[in-house]
Amino acid sequence: MSTLHFFKGHGTENDFVIVPDADGETDLSAAQVAALCDRRAGIGGDGVLRVVRSAKDPAAEHLAGEAEWFMDYRNGDGSIAEMCGNGVRVFARFLVERGLAEAGELRVATRGGVKTVTVSAEGPVTVDMGPARLPGSEGIGVDVEGRVRPATNVDMGNPHAVVFVEDLAQAGTLYTAPAVTPAGAYPHGVNVEFVVRRAPGHVAMRVHERGSGETRSCGTGACAVMVAAARADGAEPSVTGEPVTYTVDVPGGRLVITERVDGHIEMTGPAVIVAEGRVDLSRL
Amino acid sequence: MSTLHFFKGHGTENDFVIVPDADGETDLSAAQVAALCDRRAGIGGDGVLRVVRSAKDPAAEHLAGEAEWFMDYRNGDGSIAEMCGNGVRVFARFLVERGLAEAGELRVATRGGVKTVTVSAEGPVTVDMGPARLPGSEGIGVDVEGRVRPATNVDMGNPHAVVFVEDLAQAGTLYTAPAVTPAGAYPHGVNVEFVVRRAPGHVAMRVHERGSGETRSCGTGACAVMVAAARADGAEPSVTGEPVTYTVDVPGGRLVITERVDGHIEMTGPAVIVAEGRVDLSRL
Repeated sequence: MSTLHFFKGHGTENDFVIVPDADGETDLSAAQVAALCDRRAGIGGDGVLRVVRSAKDPAAEHLAGEAEWFMDYRNGDGSIAEMCGNGVRVFARFLVERGLAEAGELRVATRGGVKTVTVSAEGPVTVDMGPARLPGSEGIGVDVEGRVRPATNVDMGNPHAVVFVEDLAQAGTLYTAPAVTPAGAYPHGVNVEFVVRRAPGHVAMRVHERGSGETRSCGTGACAVMVAAARADGAEPSVTGEPVTYTVDVPGGRLVITERVDGHIEMTGPAVIVAEGRVDLSRL
Repeated sequence: MSTLHFFKGHGTENDFVIVPDADGETDLSAAQVAALCDRRAGIGGDGVLRVVRSAKDPAAEHLAGEAEWFMDYRNGDGSIAEMCGNGVRVFARFLVERGLAEAGELRVATRGGVKTVTVSAEGPVTVDMGPARLPGSEGIGVDVEGRVRPATNVDMGNPHAVVFVEDLAQAGTLYTAPAVTPAGAYPHGVNVEFVVRRAPGHVAMRVHERGSGETRSCGTGACAVMVAAARADGAEPSVTGEPVTYTVDVPGGRLVITERVDGHIEMTGPAVIVAEGRVDLSRL
């Protein structure tokens, strides 16, 4: 019986199968990752986080001097991804909970570079998601109940179209991708966020992730929403010299997001490890 | 930390969180069951199978003379259910794999009575699902691409409307329950199966389960489909004195279903335990 040690955890219900592999001895094929993430025949998760020392993985050994641990993130379909904001928070929580790193500020190597994460002993985890870019939103629109509304175009390393609505039900079922105009605006697809205001500095959102459909949480999407809301409110930290913080409710929980004066976006929220076990790969 | 020992298994991708509790010491609330079955914040499953000695559970102690083990089955929302055909196959596989019962024929107590299950050492598991009833199908129809087609009304302890199509894509997205006529035919809802013929004695199906939506497998649904197909082919074992067997492909795998001369329906298919672990209930 070929069993693999795993943990299961989530951040605002963006969930992961965590595979401890400190010395880089576990080679997971794309098919094995997809089988692990299968919610009925496997363990189930939005992706896999393999926890390996940077020095022990060819993809990260050049970062070993900056970050002891490498988050080898794989999407649920087995493909390789550069980064995952909720994933890196869960990853850091795992390191601290297992005694592989100390609580406080730590650095995690990812395919998207070294990320700075701050882990409190029991509470939330903060990740520096880097700067947002606003490449210009002219002409960008999202269909809301049959009418095109102007949307804010935000780049968090991946593209987002953020549209404000009066009620999140206006997003509809989100069984399919919302229509975004003009055609061809996003040749590789776009993540679409629908946002309502709850109170000053407090919004709620639903998201349709390209390739995944509606999800319970999207870290970059929540950051994009925060920036779009801040700009709509006339707040721009790099200009005013004052950081701005918004609470962003996602279907799977609550994130607190700060735009710093240097333009970096910090995302804070829960990250929890719920289970530990062994899975028989030969039965997947 | 309050941790619960669990296993995860499935039968044709109808999946379960299995909770070993031989001596009946684990009292799972409806909320805890729902949290365990939550696919993102918990372990994930269509339901929970608590494995308890019949003598140790008030719901089954009257059956202790007939069946040593009681399948305390709960739906994914935490509600109590009488029986689950794929669940009892997974339950029996678990008993044999853990050395709690011998391979071969064994009896399992359920809230729907004592079920006879036959477990092969490594291969498939067969369950006697009891007799099907055909209460009459006159006037019963299912909407297929905007047109009502006559359907076969089959009662497997729960109601089914079985409709034959030329292509399973004709079932549509199944995001919502198919329209069944006449209105009021099934005051408590109905499971709807769309069936195509693959070869003589071989069909494939998709199912919309009332309350659950489209699922990867439905044991009673597969049995209902087998009986509907047999009758459409003019086969009726209680009349001819010959058992009839069909292969029924479901989205999650393949079931082989036999109608015996005494009218009982035997369902055979894979049942596999994929993982074992501990979950922290306080974190769900």
